[in-house]
Amino acid sequence: MPKVSIAQNILAANDTIAQEIQQSLAARGIRTINMMSSPGAGKTTLLERTLERLRGQLGKGSIGVIEGDIETSVDAERIEAAGAETVQINTRGSCHLEAHMIRAALDQLELARVELLFIENIGNLVCPAAWNLGEDVRVVVVSTTEGDEKPAKYPQMFAVSQVMIVNKLDLLPYVDYDLEKVKRQALAINPSLRIFEMSCRTGAGLDAWCEWLVAFAHGEPETTARVNQEAFS
Amino acid sequence: MPKVSIAQNILAANDTIAQEIQQSLAARGIRTINMMSSPGAGKTTLLERTLERLRGQLGKGSIGVIEGDIETSVDAERIEAAGAETVQINTRGSCHLEAHMIRAALDQLELARVELLFIENIGNLVCPAAWNLGEDVRVVVVSTTEGDEKPAKYPQMFAVSQVMIVNKLDLLPYVDYDLEKVKRQALAINPSLRIFEMSCRTGAGLDAWCEWLVAFAHGEPETTARVNQEAFS
Repeated sequence: MPKVSIAQNILAANDTIAQEIQQSLAARGIRTINMMSSPGAGKTTLLERTLERLRGQLGKGSIGVIEGDIETSVDAERIEAAGAETVQINTRGSCHLEAHMIRAALDQLELARVELLFIENIGNLVCPAAWNLGEDVRVVVVSTTEGDEKPAKYPQMFAVSQVMIVNKLDLLPYVDYDLEKVKRQALAINPSLRIFEMSCRTGAGLDAWCEWLVAFAHGEPETTARVNQEAFS
Repeated sequence: MPKVSIAQNILAANDTIAQEIQQSLAARGIRTINMMSSPGAGKTTLLERTLERLRGQLGKGSIGVIEGDIETSVDAERIEAAGAETVQINTRGSCHLEAHMIRAALDQLELARVELLFIENIGNLVCPAAWNLGEDVRVVVVSTTEGDEKPAKYPQMFAVSQVMIVNKLDLLPYVDYDLEKVKRQALAINPSLRIFEMSCRTGAGLDAWCEWLVAFAHGEPETTARVNQEAFS
């Protein structure tokens, strides 16, 4: 008896669109980063600080941002004010971005001017991990105020990411957070994970992250998103 | 041409099970609370502190906890150590609890000993809002480190909840968080929302919450979960 798994089919259809996006962006020389985290881990502030620092390093107007949000455009307004070419996706209830949403958003971007493209996913450590968006790299942002069990509790997110940022280091003295345990847990799930520790409030760690981004924009990734996704599944 | 909305049918089937659960628990005099939040907002620590304080106020062994988690049982172990009758649900990838999972968990609880039942949902501000679990009351926990746009960005969660807890008040001096704005946003979405401000670290605000819980366990709710859910949809 044949069986149809709806979930598998939907994800396969998504992967097809994601692959088209990846090929189309690669043909234009655009490198793409999918930023994922819990709600409130600091993705938008991190992007603001990143845009400030990368200004001039990649050329004017060379960074695009696709902002995923369920209802509002508050984050997109902040990012636009920070000087990036920005498109807002409102998912109207969906807890993750899907590739067809990215395809529609790309139609609204002046891609000829973009060298580096950030996608800020919906704040959610679960579902975004399952949906390829055509990105080259996935970055998971955790923060020191979220508790130090996140990699163990949300392993797929850490398995499919190439980079983990531990944010809000400035709050470490005020919380019970075992940073070494978090890094150990994350690396046990994904030994090739690159880890940046930072505080967007004090600026600590932003230089190393931005240096990595510039190298990445110029085509120096160690891994690509697709490789790790396969390693997990 | 007839149209079938799969999403609607799945939610309707879930609601049917949720209603059966609610009736069955009501017949036993058990009051049920669905606790929801972002990952790391502090639900488990809040439950630990709550169990310590309620011990003796409701009688020994009178609190049950159903712990939702994707993969691990670290939270359930903490709650069990805190003295509650605990059942672990591992959703294996699902980003929310569903009513059929609660039904299965209830089979594992000695319900005759339970007066108050907590359900700790998966850390996610999106999907859990759409899935009734047969609870009497929904509590959304936010924390001062998550940014102060959460009600506006995740409105359904605040619309379907009866109680909002603002946790981690002790970190307020170290973060940019406009507490009054959060309360204003939340009340604009849901004017009947009851708000507790607390710090599980210092204990501030826990007394008021526990007093409310004792009154609730004794059958004094102002609203029930179902009413508000309808108000939103």
